[in-house]
Amino acid sequence: MSPSLVYNGDVAAVKSSPVSGRFAAVYSEVQTNRIDHALPLPSVLRNPFKIVDGPPSSAAGNPDEIAKLFPNMFGQPSAMLVPNGVDSVGSDQKLKIGVVLSGGQAPGGHNVISGIFDYLQERAKGSILYGFRGGPAGIMKGKYIELSADYIYPYRNQGGFDMICSGRDKIETPEQFKQAEETAAKLDLDGLLVIGGDDSNTNACLLAENFRCKNLKTRVIGCPKTIDGDLKCKEVPTSFGFDTACKVAAKKLTLKNVTDYMVDVICKRAELGYNYGVILIPEGLIDFIPEVQQLIAELNEILAHDIVDEDGLWKKKLTDQSLKLFDFLPQAIQEQLMLERDPHGNVQVAKIETEKMLIQMVETELEERKQEGSYKADFKGQSHFFGYEGRCGLPTNFDASYCYALGYGAGALLHSGKTGLISSVGNLCAPVEEWTVGGTALTSMMDVERRHGKFKPVIKKAMVELDGAPYKKYASMREEWALKNCYISPGPIQFVGPSSNAVNHTLLLELGAQA
Amino acid sequence: MSPSLVYNGDVAAVKSSPVSGRFAAVYSEVQTNRIDHALPLPSVLRNPFKIVDGPPSSAAGNPDEIAKLFPNMFGQPSAMLVPNGVDSVGSDQKLKIGVVLSGGQAPGGHNVISGIFDYLQERAKGSILYGFRGGPAGIMKGKYIELSADYIYPYRNQGGFDMICSGRDKIETPEQFKQAEETAAKLDLDGLLVIGGDDSNTNACLLAENFRCKNLKTRVIGCPKTIDGDLKCKEVPTSFGFDTACKVAAKKLTLKNVTDYMVDVICKRAELGYNYGVILIPEGLIDFIPEVQQLIAELNEILAHDIVDEDGLWKKKLTDQSLKLFDFLPQAIQEQLMLERDPHGNVQVAKIETEKMLIQMVETELEERKQEGSYKADFKGQSHFFGYEGRCGLPTNFDASYCYALGYGAGALLHSGKTGLISSVGNLCAPVEEWTVGGTALTSMMDVERRHGKFKPVIKKAMVELDGAPYKKYASMREEWALKNCYISPGPIQFVGPSSNAVNHTLLLELGAQA
Repeated sequence: MSPSLVYNGDVAAVKSSPVSGRFAAVYSEVQTNRIDHALPLPSVLRNPFKIVDGPPSSAAGNPDEIAKLFPNMFGQPSAMLVPNGVDSVGSDQKLKIGVVLSGGQAPGGHNVISGIFDYLQERAKGSILYGFRGGPAGIMKGKYIELSADYIYPYRNQGGFDMICSGRDKIETPEQFKQAEETAAKLDLDGLLVIGGDDSNTNACLLAENFRCKNLKTRVIGCPKTIDGDLKCKEVPTSFGFDTACKVAAKKLTLKNVTDYMVDVICKRAELGYNYGVILIPEGLIDFIPEVQQLIAELNEILAHDIVDEDGLWKKKLTDQSLKLFDFLPQAIQEQLMLERDPHGNVQVAKIETEKMLIQMVETELEERKQEGSYKADFKGQSHFFGYEGRCGLPTNFDASYCYALGYGAGALLHSGKTGLISSVGNLCAPVEEWTVGGTALTSMMDVERRHGKFKPVIKKAMVELDGAPYKKYASMREEWALKNCYISPGPIQFVGPSSNAVNHTLLLELGAQA
Repeated sequence: MSPSLVYNGDVAAVKSSPVSGRFAAVYSEVQTNRIDHALPLPSVLRNPFKIVDGPPSSAAGNPDEIAKLFPNMFGQPSAMLVPNGVDSVGSDQKLKIGVVLSGGQAPGGHNVISGIFDYLQERAKGSILYGFRGGPAGIMKGKYIELSADYIYPYRNQGGFDMICSGRDKIETPEQFKQAEETAAKLDLDGLLVIGGDDSNTNACLLAENFRCKNLKTRVIGCPKTIDGDLKCKEVPTSFGFDTACKVAAKKLTLKNVTDYMVDVICKRAELGYNYGVILIPEGLIDFIPEVQQLIAELNEILAHDIVDEDGLWKKKLTDQSLKLFDFLPQAIQEQLMLERDPHGNVQVAKIETEKMLIQMVETELEERKQEGSYKADFKGQSHFFGYEGRCGLPTNFDASYCYALGYGAGALLHSGKTGLISSVGNLCAPVEEWTVGGTALTSMMDVERRHGKFKPVIKKAMVELDGAPYKKYASMREEWALKNCYISPGPIQFVGPSSNAVNHTLLLELGAQA
């Protein structure tokens, strides 16, 4: 069929484009139908509620360091919305709220915005919602649009982030904080909702801390957005857009171990007459292998402080083990490791073509086995990257409802004066009516990490729990799935009919085990 | 998310795998629901019908050569099923029929098999349907399975070709024809249904000619299967699995022209503030550029007859123009052009990473424009190949019904003693009940072409008609689509609800114009 060439396809690149709204566009029948899809709300949000605080929180690691970095935010309790006879959240207060999308797309982003918009319309009449354009840069440059019901309407339940676009900038330097303060003051903002991943939510917390520290009234609430499933905690059971991503536990494995494991499976299947197969490789697998982690850590340090000369003298700064590994890697991978870093100074794992590297390594090893006589078939590897298929699709019914509740709940948190929390919706395996709604202290999810050669606060990435129910279930099937032909096709997303309201398997396994 | 590594993923590679049936497998809710999806049949197939012949046919080109190659088949009329008071197709005859899948997957292949199976069950009771395993090699090696209702059941309306698997072998040499004759005789075959693309249908016709020539009773009917949309004629309005593929008319353009056109659009969009975009490139674009066609033709001749030495002395056999072009191409593309050929000896266009080549060329040109000052943005190309997403999905309702009718109609053609025809179902924009069913002489779609340095019969690829309604419509939108942001998302395939019974836009434009 058709290959395509996307240029500057990442949301970061569309940050400077004018937002013209969608009214001139033509919609497909599916899009039109989705716009009018009615969303259920958790019952706690459909009736009067009040907000109840939990016990004080700590941090995911190094609480003393986190407390120093966030003197005003550290220790905040989590918040839970519970039914109340009268609506206790200041219902006659008119609010001015800003909302911003940060980082790569995830299905449902538009619904978070619809959710907070509807909250304000229904529960804080006369409020104003501003959409910052092109990500955090929109806050710093004061680029925004006032969002109206008509403006939002065509984006309801649609994919993409194009309503206000997104960007990958961060608000980090004193100058940038000052710009954000000026915008907040100019718009008289009561609150800001930051929709983003782990780094963006860390940034949201820094902003919350900074505003509070400067005695500004602007509160900041985060909203979990990632397709990687690595932004979660007890109260944030899943990030929106998260689609079953089962990370291979490559702990303590070397690249050679991983290659050998694949080659063993390929050879065993060949003996069974199955000279074909599909190997699913998690993005960033390379980054999870200790010897590679060590190499990347060394490269991050070298690239942060030193000049990389073309003659390769910089390589002398690598330890022996890392130098050996670096030289062992295919040239294309070497080049990718040296590529431009993300704004946090880190290797862009998405750009390392792990799958192509593994194909090369598997080919080499199979060639040896062929010469030994233990493999007789022909191997032809074909890689395919599933990076953006999932990012920009129309949200499933689950993601549409989940995001809407996240946005609606964030409205309630901001309305009640909360700051430095991440909007959290739970009990997701139950019917929507029974979902719980609240907020979790962002600092409680944080640890410190070394970046650019310095310690920085970061939200600890949620790793796959090796003793968790989903992993155990998958691990128990590993051998059978490797050697037999156990394929199942979920089919495309169905909005009506079978599986249209399905909850993803990982969540079912995780929450099923907790229940 | 997750990259994946597919090895030997092409159907050709699965030809030797044992077919165990699907009964042990677990199905998703969507798959289970699809199995029981009821298929409508054209009304002509639901009632007694007879077969009416049209006028004698000719060939798509060089009729004298085609007549020499197919003395028994050439000139056959097309066949049309029409309602009849009594069922005139020999209804009490028990048939032994074989069916084979040939080439790459296309959604709906399993439904063609279900269609002919159901025809035999309902209209020729007591008949037997054999499925040859792993493509035409299954015919030659006598590898087959007797298909039963239980065996077929779980594959109804499912994607893939795994019921009997496929392969890319062809029956071409006298020895191979002999093997096919032996299998046909051994199984006492009355007929054979070959489901495949242009080359496979040409092969089906050669087999039909050969069987007739040898006075064997085995008839051969073809069935159009390609996702490229290049196998069609008046009576075969679309191939199953064909998903809107709009070929760029690159006639008389050079590679430089194509590059410049893209660069111009990128620069114009940059001036409008749109520093992003998607460029859809047809697979094999490179093959449609005359200077490239010339180069490939020369390479095909050289590779068929000469040894390619590592020192590059073979290059001296290229004409000056082709040598210049070859040297101008990025190294990776040079290597791909020299890669292993398909069994027809042709360059495997799917393996030429046209999109990556164009990114490199666009980068180079934009760099020049930047230095001239006529482009100020940064270009980052990201390629994505949509090769297999479409191939292996579950068939849409349209493809499921279309394929079922093709198979059912093929049963009627074989039952009535027809051979050398391709099953054809028409009037596709009307409700299924009104679809027409018949067969078209395969020789009428043929011309001769030079392959491996010799003339061979080939079904002429249906090119986009530059004066056809779909092309004209798309061409009229080209400028607007290039410079504005006119995106529309069809969403994923919907089996129930909005757009679940949609006919594709190209067919609507084509057939709408004819009506």
